[in-house]
Amino acid sequence: MSPEEFREFGRQVVDWIADYYSGVERHPVRSQVGPGEVRAQLPAHPPERGEPFERVLSDLDAVLVPGVTHWQHPNFFAYFPANATGPSILGDLLSSGLGVQGMVWATSPACTELETVVVDWMAELLGLPEHFRTDAVGGGVIQDSASSAALVACLAALQRVSDGQVASRGITRRHTLYVSAHTHSSLERAARMVGIGGDNVRIVDVDPDTLGMDPAHLDALIAEDLAAGAVPTLVCATIGTTSTTAIDPVRAVGEVCRARGIWLHVDAAYAGVAAVCPELRWINDGVAEFADSYCTNAHKWLLTNFDCSLLWMADRRPMVDALSILPEYLRNPATASGEVIDYRDWQVPLGRRFRALKLWSVLRWYGAEGLREHIRATVGLAQEFADRVRDDPRFELLEPHPLGLVCFRPLFPELSTEDANDRVYRLMESLNDSGELYLTHTKVDGRTLLRLAVGSPQTERRHVLAAWKRIQEAMG
Amino acid sequence: MSPEEFREFGRQVVDWIADYYSGVERHPVRSQVGPGEVRAQLPAHPPERGEPFERVLSDLDAVLVPGVTHWQHPNFFAYFPANATGPSILGDLLSSGLGVQGMVWATSPACTELETVVVDWMAELLGLPEHFRTDAVGGGVIQDSASSAALVACLAALQRVSDGQVASRGITRRHTLYVSAHTHSSLERAARMVGIGGDNVRIVDVDPDTLGMDPAHLDALIAEDLAAGAVPTLVCATIGTTSTTAIDPVRAVGEVCRARGIWLHVDAAYAGVAAVCPELRWINDGVAEFADSYCTNAHKWLLTNFDCSLLWMADRRPMVDALSILPEYLRNPATASGEVIDYRDWQVPLGRRFRALKLWSVLRWYGAEGLREHIRATVGLAQEFADRVRDDPRFELLEPHPLGLVCFRPLFPELSTEDANDRVYRLMESLNDSGELYLTHTKVDGRTLLRLAVGSPQTERRHVLAAWKRIQEAMG
Repeated sequence: MSPEEFREFGRQVVDWIADYYSGVERHPVRSQVGPGEVRAQLPAHPPERGEPFERVLSDLDAVLVPGVTHWQHPNFFAYFPANATGPSILGDLLSSGLGVQGMVWATSPACTELETVVVDWMAELLGLPEHFRTDAVGGGVIQDSASSAALVACLAALQRVSDGQVASRGITRRHTLYVSAHTHSSLERAARMVGIGGDNVRIVDVDPDTLGMDPAHLDALIAEDLAAGAVPTLVCATIGTTSTTAIDPVRAVGEVCRARGIWLHVDAAYAGVAAVCPELRWINDGVAEFADSYCTNAHKWLLTNFDCSLLWMADRRPMVDALSILPEYLRNPATASGEVIDYRDWQVPLGRRFRALKLWSVLRWYGAEGLREHIRATVGLAQEFADRVRDDPRFELLEPHPLGLVCFRPLFPELSTEDANDRVYRLMESLNDSGELYLTHTKVDGRTLLRLAVGSPQTERRHVLAAWKRIQEAMG
Repeated sequence: MSPEEFREFGRQVVDWIADYYSGVERHPVRSQVGPGEVRAQLPAHPPERGEPFERVLSDLDAVLVPGVTHWQHPNFFAYFPANATGPSILGDLLSSGLGVQGMVWATSPACTELETVVVDWMAELLGLPEHFRTDAVGGGVIQDSASSAALVACLAALQRVSDGQVASRGITRRHTLYVSAHTHSSLERAARMVGIGGDNVRIVDVDPDTLGMDPAHLDALIAEDLAAGAVPTLVCATIGTTSTTAIDPVRAVGEVCRARGIWLHVDAAYAGVAAVCPELRWINDGVAEFADSYCTNAHKWLLTNFDCSLLWMADRRPMVDALSILPEYLRNPATASGEVIDYRDWQVPLGRRFRALKLWSVLRWYGAEGLREHIRATVGLAQEFADRVRDDPRFELLEPHPLGLVCFRPLFPELSTEDANDRVYRLMESLNDSGELYLTHTKVDGRTLLRLAVGSPQTERRHVLAAWKRIQEAMG
């Protein structure tokens, strides 16, 4: 495709996307297709000859879009938001266009240095501690996801606790990892992947009111494991659980970790970016003093399209020591000088996109002010929705709900818990089947709750109010 | 950014990229900046107020581009190619624009189903075996990189060899992994990450002529490790090593693996895509019969921008069993039905972009015919370059060089090996410093070789001939 053809088709794609956002409300939020329906419409064999680019766009409309669940729809309230915005899409387009590899500094210095700048900017915007900055012993990096960040944190923790023995000799002792029942499944997955094993993931009790991790129980489990000869290796505290945005008491958990010499990873994948607002910065209490690693996703609520997960280390050395291998073909004078960062040592893959461009583009377009406005607006809408739920006796509201997620439960007092759960689930499925809005669910204490997450820049007050009306109607 | 603003700025970015490709030869191939130069030109603090989008583009030109090493430059002969092309950039743009999450089928059915279609198409285009297709027990998936693919293969191998014990109880025995000295460092890195440990990576001898793995030595090492009580877990055979594109004898290695019951992972990251050409399909000899997993990168030589690494499994169950965890908030009717694929169980991260769009766009724009033309043209240029090197007595050519990479060595017969190596390295650095072309190096048998990789659609015959002339001149 020549540059002139690219110019022509590029404009068509830009127009396609602009039109898509203008008309996104015309689509059902959740795709209405059944398993195999999209695939059945696609050729079984690849084309032998090249086709005009217009056919890609026409098949996109005819075949793929009906199979798309519209995460950018204003009535998408499922999971957590995954914001895509103009400046992030265009920053990402520049990254694709430049097509550089940022595996080491030398393979594109700007790719590495802009990343250092934007993660340092983000640390400042979120009020994270000075020692997370790259000029200190710590440093930040863009990962693809909080799952990969958790994996990297586990590897750094194993490196530190084993004094490098795990990287060389492998796992030779029983290591343990600590989560609560509300911690994201990526931590158990990381424990499996690094060779700790799922059975050695210990589930710490939570406070029944806050759903936050109980530090006393954590300490008791650690003592038990130590007595049994295990090596307690990492504790994950969550700021804003996926299930309900519960917040673990990071400070109290951190004190246990400090006393026991255990790595504290803080998973603030969804909630951490809320700290751009000073009035929400309390969620990070204890992080500055106690976190060895901290993760939050710009690609959820912070207007930057996937993938853009931010991971900071209080001390980057264990991570780099765990992950660094220098084959001959990657040797270069800059790496040898020790004056540069090679981000390949900070992540699972070797190769890396110029992901900093999209975050840079977002930070410049919105400014700190614009980011705060977005968080405040969506928290405000969620609070208004929660007020409505609280005022309707047919529903029970889960408190607290300080951020953009509201969990609630339609009440069926005449039914057993199991039957009521079933009714709640079916009510949700009927709403989702309507295509008018999209919610997901969770379970707390054996009870099925609905989750309504507000976080898209497309979502206005009228959308949230209409969603509430629709939910009320579904109750009959 | 409103849809109308996006339309306006999107056109500017498309034009910027079109102009970039039209004028890419004006830039020095390798960035000429020193450590910290880019960073020093960027503000220390994030902007408080949003800025016009034009400023992103003007800073891109003024500050970032001088710090960019131009991987799409026709004189980029370093590492391996990392093709970005119009259709792939536009497919990626559509992915960013739609902003969907493909973690499970239900979160965007088209994202999963198009991926299944394009990886099956790719299996057909490369002549890979039927049992790699998703309708069989195997299946393919798009990973971010061959490093992550190797990690997933190791996890699947551990799952199979331990009958699931590693996922549950962690690593409790000494597992061993087999590579040659020419295997990519991502395998040792994967061994570290999964808890096998770098010391348990066994280095199999290579045939001094072909640099391919010696199956007899492999078998002897396995026997030794078994006798010592270790659990031989995975052998990695490489088709096209990073250093010199050497090819391990997959069939003979596979026979050892089969006899010993060990997982065979085939890393064809760079070379595998060459199999779109029937006359190059010999490189995959033995894959159909013996490979448990097979990886090749569309994002190197196959006209698709990073990241797009293709991983196939002969049997997907060990991988899915190793990686699948189903928390309540991800439960959905489609997953429960077992009728769909949830690709989150096939990779390290949970979230995933709609990466199939860019590969689909590439396959349709070029067709099988266009892909074959691209591979043939670049292999042809590399062969012509090799012919020139062979004809000049001041250089030694490394044989064979069946693909797009040519390794060669300027001869300094009057110098010791060490001094000659130093001269070769300095000669390379002086070429790279000129900005006229970009080469990298490797070491074989203690001797430093230059690597010239041809693979960009931008590279024409005149570029390769000019590079050769420039190298000859540098010899004085």
